[in-house]
Amino acid sequence: MAQNIYDDPTFFEGYGRLNRSVDGLAGAPEWPALRSMLPDMRGLRVVDLGCGYGWFCRWAGEQGASEVLGLDISERMLDRARAATDGGSIAYSHANIEEFSLPPAGYDLVYSSLAFHYIEDAERLYRTIHDALVPGGRLVFSTEHPIFMASGRPGWIATDAGRTWPVDHYSTEGRRTAHWLGADVVKYHRTVATTVNLLIGAGFRILHMEEFSPTAAQIEADPTLAEEVDRPMFLMIAAER
Amino acid sequence: MAQNIYDDPTFFEGYGRLNRSVDGLAGAPEWPALRSMLPDMRGLRVVDLGCGYGWFCRWAGEQGASEVLGLDISERMLDRARAATDGGSIAYSHANIEEFSLPPAGYDLVYSSLAFHYIEDAERLYRTIHDALVPGGRLVFSTEHPIFMASGRPGWIATDAGRTWPVDHYSTEGRRTAHWLGADVVKYHRTVATTVNLLIGAGFRILHMEEFSPTAAQIEADPTLAEEVDRPMFLMIAAER
Repeated sequence: MAQNIYDDPTFFEGYGRLNRSVDGLAGAPEWPALRSMLPDMRGLRVVDLGCGYGWFCRWAGEQGASEVLGLDISERMLDRARAATDGGSIAYSHANIEEFSLPPAGYDLVYSSLAFHYIEDAERLYRTIHDALVPGGRLVFSTEHPIFMASGRPGWIATDAGRTWPVDHYSTEGRRTAHWLGADVVKYHRTVATTVNLLIGAGFRILHMEEFSPTAAQIEADPTLAEEVDRPMFLMIAAER
Repeated sequence: MAQNIYDDPTFFEGYGRLNRSVDGLAGAPEWPALRSMLPDMRGLRVVDLGCGYGWFCRWAGEQGASEVLGLDISERMLDRARAATDGGSIAYSHANIEEFSLPPAGYDLVYSSLAFHYIEDAERLYRTIHDALVPGGRLVFSTEHPIFMASGRPGWIATDAGRTWPVDHYSTEGRRTAHWLGADVVKYHRTVATTVNLLIGAGFRILHMEEFSPTAAQIEADPTLAEEVDRPMFLMIAAER
């Protein structure tokens, strides 16, 4: 059962100060990689699972999507999303991605940014998405990378050669608790292989995979990104029904 | 250019004492996972890239493969393979997998165990394999896992919670040198995403992925395998032309 950490006031306040909350897609360093996996948006019926403030939904609308539905577990996020959106082809709805359903074959694209690691039952998730897509429709998503999530004690270790990231319990899937933005955030670790095999088992064909690594230009603009070269924080996959 | 470490006498002698050298497939803990990705072997034309002592080639012959070709860079390994093989449908040939070629669409299965991390040009490798397979033919291989290979200083780090494996330079692909069995072994690190994308780019469809983790029964039989739960040493992929 997905925890709704985003309605915790302290967490929500902290989350609202992140670059990706203030600047939207432009504040998310992995956005260019994710964007490169998206199809031409014109005329597409789109769902965004875990839409947050609605940055992607508005972008999809601007790119010519014919219908955009943003789903999120957090009423606070949805309030902000609705207030920032002009309506038109974009709608928001409250949903727990652990339990949601969608009309069969009603969408051309399902998008999700950094929400799936909150979901315990990924098999149900991918099957639900598969059935909501038309044949040839695409799923494009990012999730926390299992290298980032696996360890019982995630955090850089200083070495005399620089820094290294701990990986342990990689094959032990399931619940992880991370302290982030003043709260205990519950998430679910799955290996890369499990994610790939569940997608294929649900009927998807894998089109492309990215493990986020910043470009030289991104590191120059924000030197704190340099550590992301050492271990990937985000896994991104494009798959086709 | 792949190094031929297997013709270094010290290395060859050490390699010959590994469980997988003495006991063959039964001595390789990842073999059950790899085997589960193989098709019914009866009547198949099979190539084994990096066949070593020929354990897999003989197994494929016993399973009813109609034609088995084992390729290896090491003449010493091929001598041992030939001496242990009865002939029949099994042949061995000297080849550098960095440069080899095969007749177009001549094979139903290409298999490779722990050889591809020695290959610098994986794009050429996968294209060559793709072209050697019939449509519907399968590639099944294992390689050292990038989590295992990435760090500049691979090796367990003791923590007060147990042990952890260092990951750094994950997105910095290319040459790594490992000290193993008394020799400096040159290998090439590639991310999981690069491997998946090169396979797809060569025309393959990903069928299944495994990241080796021992079963409880394997750990009971060999307690030294327990650490493999903490980080995967081998990545295994099945893909279809």
